[in-house]
Amino acid sequence: MAATPYKQLEQEWQRLHAFSGALSLLRWDAAVMMPRGSADVRGEQLAAIETEQHALLTSPRVSRLLERALAGTAELDDWQKANLREMNRQREHAIATPVSLITRLARATSLAEVRWAEAREKQDFTVFAPHLEEVLRLVRDRAALLGQALGLAPYDALVDGFTPGLRSAEIDTVFRTLSRRLPTLIREVIERQSQQPPLALAGRFAPGKQRALIVEVMKAFGFPFDRGRLDESDHPFTEGVAGDMRVTTKLDGSDPFKGLLAALHETGHALYDLGVPREWRTQPVGKERGIALEESQSLLIEMIVCRSRPFLTWLKPLLEKHFAVSGPAWEVDNLYRTLTQVRRGAIRVDADELTYPMHVVLRYGIERDLLEGRLAVRDLPEAWNNGMADRLGVVPAHAAEGCLQDIHWAHGSFGYFPSYGIGGVIAAQLYEALKADTPDLDQRLAGGEFGSVTRWLAEHVHAEGARLTPPELMKQTTGKALTAAASLRYLESKYLEESR
Amino acid sequence: MAATPYKQLEQEWQRLHAFSGALSLLRWDAAVMMPRGSADVRGEQLAAIETEQHALLTSPRVSRLLERALAGTAELDDWQKANLREMNRQREHAIATPVSLITRLARATSLAEVRWAEAREKQDFTVFAPHLEEVLRLVRDRAALLGQALGLAPYDALVDGFTPGLRSAEIDTVFRTLSRRLPTLIREVIERQSQQPPLALAGRFAPGKQRALIVEVMKAFGFPFDRGRLDESDHPFTEGVAGDMRVTTKLDGSDPFKGLLAALHETGHALYDLGVPREWRTQPVGKERGIALEESQSLLIEMIVCRSRPFLTWLKPLLEKHFAVSGPAWEVDNLYRTLTQVRRGAIRVDADELTYPMHVVLRYGIERDLLEGRLAVRDLPEAWNNGMADRLGVVPAHAAEGCLQDIHWAHGSFGYFPSYGIGGVIAAQLYEALKADTPDLDQRLAGGEFGSVTRWLAEHVHAEGARLTPPELMKQTTGKALTAAASLRYLESKYLEESR
Repeated sequence: MAATPYKQLEQEWQRLHAFSGALSLLRWDAAVMMPRGSADVRGEQLAAIETEQHALLTSPRVSRLLERALAGTAELDDWQKANLREMNRQREHAIATPVSLITRLARATSLAEVRWAEAREKQDFTVFAPHLEEVLRLVRDRAALLGQALGLAPYDALVDGFTPGLRSAEIDTVFRTLSRRLPTLIREVIERQSQQPPLALAGRFAPGKQRALIVEVMKAFGFPFDRGRLDESDHPFTEGVAGDMRVTTKLDGSDPFKGLLAALHETGHALYDLGVPREWRTQPVGKERGIALEESQSLLIEMIVCRSRPFLTWLKPLLEKHFAVSGPAWEVDNLYRTLTQVRRGAIRVDADELTYPMHVVLRYGIERDLLEGRLAVRDLPEAWNNGMADRLGVVPAHAAEGCLQDIHWAHGSFGYFPSYGIGGVIAAQLYEALKADTPDLDQRLAGGEFGSVTRWLAEHVHAEGARLTPPELMKQTTGKALTAAASLRYLESKYLEESR
Repeated sequence: MAATPYKQLEQEWQRLHAFSGALSLLRWDAAVMMPRGSADVRGEQLAAIETEQHALLTSPRVSRLLERALAGTAELDDWQKANLREMNRQREHAIATPVSLITRLARATSLAEVRWAEAREKQDFTVFAPHLEEVLRLVRDRAALLGQALGLAPYDALVDGFTPGLRSAEIDTVFRTLSRRLPTLIREVIERQSQQPPLALAGRFAPGKQRALIVEVMKAFGFPFDRGRLDESDHPFTEGVAGDMRVTTKLDGSDPFKGLLAALHETGHALYDLGVPREWRTQPVGKERGIALEESQSLLIEMIVCRSRPFLTWLKPLLEKHFAVSGPAWEVDNLYRTLTQVRRGAIRVDADELTYPMHVVLRYGIERDLLEGRLAVRDLPEAWNNGMADRLGVVPAHAAEGCLQDIHWAHGSFGYFPSYGIGGVIAAQLYEALKADTPDLDQRLAGGEFGSVTRWLAEHVHAEGARLTPPELMKQTTGKALTAAASLRYLESKYLEESR
């Protein structure tokens, strides 16, 4: 008997999965191992495989098979139905943008990225402005086409490409709630913290020792070093597939926590990818459910679990063992104060968990205004600086510290930023549910039983793969709609706690 | 104006080149970086891209384009014509074997490789025999089909897949000449050398110091570290493409030369790949011309240039610098004696340049007999041991030291071995011509002017890409047909020289 259309589609997506894995490894190599002069060669290899993927995804054969499979889903179980829906979603996204537009976007963004780096270097927005205008024009075309195909507003169509099922209506609600409370909370916390600043963690922390510590901590979180690696790169990231995870971090010789926390952030991503149902790994439904949920997993580990007293209680003897440190600066209370310091800063990636959402809210508003024509590119620096002053009371010294700090827009990634903020909100909401299920969680963490966290996440989040949208998953896992309330409860109790 | 059929073919081969580069990097990673548990995932990625390559190469579109391009070559220059011929050759090789046979071969060889390893471990040929029989049956089918398609005898068709244009008639002549002289020469040299055995190079040579030395020597040979890497792996190899060469070696803490010479061997391969004409790099005519020529380049560097007094004269101060060694064992004469010791041994990969050809001649005879039905698989161990006794006076202690020592047949690679032997012969023939062109070569080498070798090779060999067959290239470069005479002259003068 011939394979059913659905089964044939599974085979096609198995090939797509293999291509994705190869692409991921090629990107990992480019960032970690590749000699400096080889970027052109790698670019050709990536482009050849990406072109192949796109051709397969938009082929008449796949369209026909999808049509036939969607016409008769009676035989399919829930996972298969969800898988078919995800296949169709991927095809719709792929087919909505004509190849000519993809090519123009690729060309415009690769030039824009170069000019963005140059503009940043020169602290001069005008070097970048015309290129951003060109990228924006093309992204607008793409958003309109995508929106039409998916029946969504243009901006929502872009968001959907990063976090499927997330809509700006939900983002608006969440960000409004955060914006109402955070500015005053930040002021209050900074005021409190100023009364007892942390002692400095002075010293040099040799790379080899940092690596040994990080590996030990990652193992405690269940990272499988027989099917994964830890390396160093300019920017920490996670690549690879469930059977071969490649995590990187960046070490700082004068800071024992930067490299560790970055590695734990990435470990959160890796555990998500590892936790999807084994039998669905090669299929769309067996992947993580978009950027916001990805980010929730890394933030939950890095920000909530690891910047906590219980974790630091467990970590203290390891710091002593690996770095031979001691004294009042290395007591749990001081470590905790160090890792929860709130500072108003101009740079998003350096922000703490209290000010971070404000950076995102700013970008969200600006990128929608740009896309929807309410803001001209030439007025971006001013809008940015005003927004920073309003939201965080910070005025960037120059454009490199302001609207040139992130590569996302040069890269054409409009609609990406909100996922960072929503990720933090999801993390807090999940953690509240996890704590409710595990009343002695703090004792467990202090004892190094991180399985209490990772198993819960695996069961409630990872095991669902891409079956549900993030709002659906929140409902199922926490019993509540996606909401910023848990996030505010978490931040208030953590940063206003009496015992500080 | 639409692109000509020929130009369209160039574009298709550019894609094939990008796929090849990606495959090569994935193989490099598997051997050097990949976690142990990830082989299954990598296997799927390699298979997906290989399948894509094969589909492209055998597509009706490519067939049609080739037909049209071959019908009107008047517009093409010599390189384009040669390129078109190579494209057609690749397609003929690909199309001659039906996909079903390729699949059966892939399955049979991957099982056979496992059983081969097991049989080697257990020193028991019977564990491997039935699997070798199955592989042999399939290879025979493949050879027959290939032969038919290419108008060659079945064995020649297999050889042609590794070294295009090399035929068994030439191999027979060369190997007959070697077989007539080498056994007595080996006896004579061993007798001579026994009168003055080398002093041992005792010590521990730290990996970091070995690496530093190797990098310095590779740089002296022109290896471009901005477009290439040196790493360690279980078996030294070269992967990558001209823009991103990945060379590996294997270090031995008690032997300062093993890792260095292996790296120089691989550097010979890398320089070949780097020397092909830049504008033809993505095309078939811009690749190396098969295994025998590849091997000639590595052997010329490792065996002829580096196992020489001039090279060792240059190397001596570097050894002193990196390893802080001194004394009579580290004098050039003793180093030279150490690196040119001739020993009768059972293992091919450990053999010196004098006994090595005999190992190859044995395998050549046996694999032809197996393929052409004159030898049954069950009689292989006996034939092997008799051959070793006849040719080298060595009787392997067990099958793991005998007919189970190489993976090639388990892998289905019949017709590969002669290229090793022919490679050595080509190396000597090229070197003779190089010396004739460069009368003061020895002084230059002693001064570290390796450009005298590498530039000559680049000009006379690498720059030709795959335009000529190895015999044609020999004719053009040395003015003579492929011959073992130069090889015997080289070996006799090196190993019987009076000054020893």
